[in-house]
Amino acid sequence: MRVALYRRGHFNAAHRLYVPTWSDEKNQEIFGKCNNPNYHGHNYDLEVKVSGEVDPETGMLIDLKYLRDIIEEKVEEKLDHKNLNTDIPELRDIRPTTENICYFIYQQIKEELGEKYDVKVRLWETPRNSAEYPAD
Amino acid sequence: MRVALYRRGHFNAAHRLYVPTWSDEKNQEIFGKCNNPNYHGHNYDLEVKVSGEVDPETGMLIDLKYLRDIIEEKVEEKLDHKNLNTDIPELRDIRPTTENICYFIYQQIKEELGEKYDVKVRLWETPRNSAEYPAD
Amino acid sequence: MRVALYRRGHFNAAHRLYVPTWSDEKNQEIFGKCNNPNYHGHNYDLEVKVSGEVDPETGMLIDLKYLRDIIEEKVEEKLDHKNLNTDIPELRDIRPTTENICYFIYQQIKEELGEKYDVKVRLWETPRNSAEYPAD
Amino acid sequence: MRVALYRRGHFNAAHRLYVPTWSDEKNQEIFGKCNNPNYHGHNYDLEVKVSGEVDPETGMLIDLKYLRDIIEEKVEEKLDHKNLNTDIPELRDIRPTTENICYFIYQQIKEELGEKYDVKVRLWETPRNSAEYPAD
Amino acid sequence: MRVALYRRGHFNAAHRLYVPTWSDEKNQEIFGKCNNPNYHGHNYDLEVKVSGEVDPETGMLIDLKYLRDIIEEKVEEKLDHKNLNTDIPELRDIRPTTENICYFIYQQIKEELGEKYDVKVRLWETPRNSAEYPAD
Amino acid sequence: MRVALYRRGHFNAAHRLYVPTWSDEKNQEIFGKCNNPNYHGHNYDLEVKVSGEVDPETGMLIDLKYLRDIIEEKVEEKLDHKNLNTDIPELRDIRPTTENICYFIYQQIKEELGEKYDVKVRLWETPRNSAEYPAD
Repeated sequence: MRVALYRRGHFNAAHRLYVPTWSDEKNQEIFGKCNNPNYHGHNYDLEVKVSGEVDPETGMLIDLKYLRDIIEEKVEEKLDHKNLNTDIPELRDIRPTTENICYFIYQQIKEELGEKYDVKVRLWETPRNSAEYPAD
Repeated sequence: MRVALYRRGHFNAAHRLYVPTWSDEKNQEIFGKCNNPNYHGHNYDLEVKVSGEVDPETGMLIDLKYLRDIIEEKVEEKLDHKNLNTDIPELRDIRPTTENICYFIYQQIKEELGEKYDVKVRLWETPRNSAEYPAD
Repeated sequence: MRVALYRRGHFNAAHRLYVPTWSDEKNQEIFGKCNNPNYHGHNYDLEVKVSGEVDPETGMLIDLKYLRDIIEEKVEEKLDHKNLNTDIPELRDIRPTTENICYFIYQQIKEELGEKYDVKVRLWETPRNSAEYPAD
Repeated sequence: MRVALYRRGHFNAAHRLYVPTWSDEKNQEIFGKCNNPNYHGHNYDLEVKVSGEVDPETGMLIDLKYLRDIIEEKVEEKLDHKNLNTDIPELRDIRPTTENICYFIYQQIKEELGEKYDVKVRLWETPRNSAEYPAD
Repeated sequence: MRVALYRRGHFNAAHRLYVPTWSDEKNQEIFGKCNNPNYHGHNYDLEVKVSGEVDPETGMLIDLKYLRDIIEEKVEEKLDHKNLNTDIPELRDIRPTTENICYFIYQQIKEELGEKYDVKVRLWETPRNSAEYPAD
Repeated sequence: MRVALYRRGHFNAAHRLYVPTWSDEKNQEIFGKCNNPNYHGHNYDLEVKVSGEVDPETGMLIDLKYLRDIIEEKVEEKLDHKNLNTDIPELRDIRPTTENICYFIYQQIKEELGEKYDVKVRLWETPRNSAEYPAD
C-alpha cells in the first residue's frame, strides 16, 4: 500500500537576484526589482512530500515527528532569518532563485531519508509564486 | 479530452494512536502525545480528485452535485463528530493514522464511482500534515 | 535539472450552465441552480504550472515576470469582469463549465509558451471545486 | 460574561454596478469594469458576529445550529446563484455594492435575532475587498 | 502611540458537549452531534491581541518571543492533544464550549501580562465558527 | 449609514532589528535572530480599513479603485522589494518593527484621505504576527 505524506515548514530570509559577471544594466533588465543591492526578503513556505510503503503494524509511512525534526534541523535552522546570498555556503555561488533554493532543500531532505523514500519539495516564495523539484 | 475535477469536504473527529499489543512505554515512545488514552481530535479536510473524459455535450466530467453527495454520504456522515477508534467498524482494528483514514476514504469513493473514473484522495489532519492515496 | 514553476492569477466573471437544445426541465434537472437565466458568478482562481529545464546561469526556469504578463494578457484581461456565456467568442458555443474554461486557459498559455515547456492549469470555481487540464 | 460568536457563510452571485439615471459615459467613469451590462460575478464570503451574555448552564451565547440556520434561510438561500440586480426585490432599486449587500444581510439577521443580541456583518466580495456594517 | 499586536497559536483536542444533570434526550436535543459520548475533536486556532503603548527606544509594544512563550506554556502545552472534558482541571466542571475555552485562555494570558496591557482572545473551533472574549 | 471598507495590499522587504547605540550583546539578547546584520525578510500583508458614511446615490463609501491606487502609490511602490533599514528615509532612524511600519503606513494613507474618513491599518509580518494602528 503505497501512500504519500506531506509536511509543511517555513522560514524568513533576505535575498537578491543578480549575476556578478553581468553589467548592472543587464542585471536590472533580467531581474528588475529583485536586483536591489540592499536586498529584499520573503516568508518562504515549503512542503515536503515523502512517498513509500505503509508499515502495516503502525499504519504509518514515516514518523511525522522524525520528518518534522529533519525539516527543522536541515532546512529551517539553516535558512531562517538568514541572508541567502551571504549566510549559506551552499547557495553562495549560485542564484538564490526559488528553483535553486527548492533544489537545495530537496538535497538536504533526500540525503537524510535515503533510498527508502521518494521525496518531492514545493517551495512558495510568495502565495502566488512557487517551485517544485523534481518535476514530473 | 481528459481532465480532473477536485471536490473538498471536511469532518471533525477524535482519535488516539496506539498498538494494543505493545507496552505503554513503547506506545508512548512511538506515538508520543497522540497516545493520550482520553483521546484528542482534529478538523480533517479532504480533497477527492476524479479523472476521466469530459462529456462534450454537457462540458462536464462528472456531476459535481453527485460527487458532493457521495462525499457527504460515504465520508462526512460516517466520520463527522465521531471517535475514529470506537465508532467506525472498518477502522476499529487498524490504527486511525492519516494514512489509513485516507485509504478508507479512497475505498468509500472508489466503490461508488467504479471503473469509469480514476480516484485520488488527499486528507489533511492539520494544515501542516496530510496524506495522499494512491501515491504516484 | 528539471523543475516546475507555479504562478497564480484570478478573475471575476458571470456565467450560466445550460444546453440550448434541451428543454427547460432537463436543463433544470442537470444544472440546477447553475441554470439561472439571469446568471450567477464566481471569483475564479487559477494556477499555471510550467515544467522544464533550469537555465544554469540565471537559476531560472522561465522569467516569472514574462509568465505573469502572459497570464494577465491572455487570461485575466480577456475573462475578468466578463460574462462567460456572451462576452468570450471562444466560449460562446460550449458550456462555460470549470472543465471547459480550464482547457481554454491551457490553450491560451500553451500557444504562447510553445514546445519548450510543459503546461498544466488548475482552475478553482470556488474554494471547494476545481478542475485541472491536462489530467495525469 | 459578555462574549462574541462568529459564524461564516457564503454565496455566489452575479451583479452589475451602474446608476440608471446616469449617462453611459458617467457610469463607465465611476464604475469601470463593474459596469459591464452583461454582468460579472463573485464568490461572496460573509461573517456574522453576534455579541451578548453567555448562558452559564450551557456555556453558550447562542445555539450555533440556530445561527447557521438563520444564515442559510435568510441569506444564502435568498442570494446564492442569483443575479443581485434582478432577482432580489430588496436590492433592485439600490446599487448592489458590497456596502449595500452587507447592510441588507445585517437587516436580515438582526430582524430575526431581535434586541437580545448585538449583530455585526462583514462581507468579502473578493479576498482583497470587504465591507462591514455597522462600523465602530 | 497606542498600538495592538496579534499573535496566533493552535492546539488539537477532543471534547464533548453535555450537561450532566440533563436527560440524554435533552442533551441530544440541545447539543446534537456534539453530544457523542465517545468524544469528537478539533484543530483549535487562537489569536491573542495585546494593546498598549509602544516603547520608543525599541519600537516594540511587547517582546513577541515573550508573548509566544506565554502562549506556548500557558495555553498550548496545557491543551494540546488533550481531552478538554477530562484532562484540564479548570474546564472539568464547565462546558468546553468555544465561549468557555476562549475565556479560559483569556484568563491564562491576562494573569501573566497584568494591568500594563489590554488583552483580547479569539478562538476558532473550525474555520467557520469562532468566539471572542471580551466582546466590545 | 456608517460602514467600513477594507482593502488588502502586500509588499516584500528586508529588514534588521537593532538599536545602534546598544552593544552587540544587548541587541542579540533583545532582538535575537532578528538582529542578523546581513538582514532577513518578509512578505508583508496589509489591510486598510476606512470608515464613514455611504453615498446614497452610488451606494459606495469610497471608490475602491481610488483606495487601491493610494495603497499602490503611497505604500507598495515605496516599500516593495526594499530594505526597510536603508532604503526608506522615514524609517531610517527608527526601528522597522511591525508596530512602526504599521504606523508609517497609517500616516501615508491618512494624509491622503484627510478628515472625511477614519483609517485603521493592520500589518502582518508573518501569518502568525501582526500589528494594528490605531488600537481601540
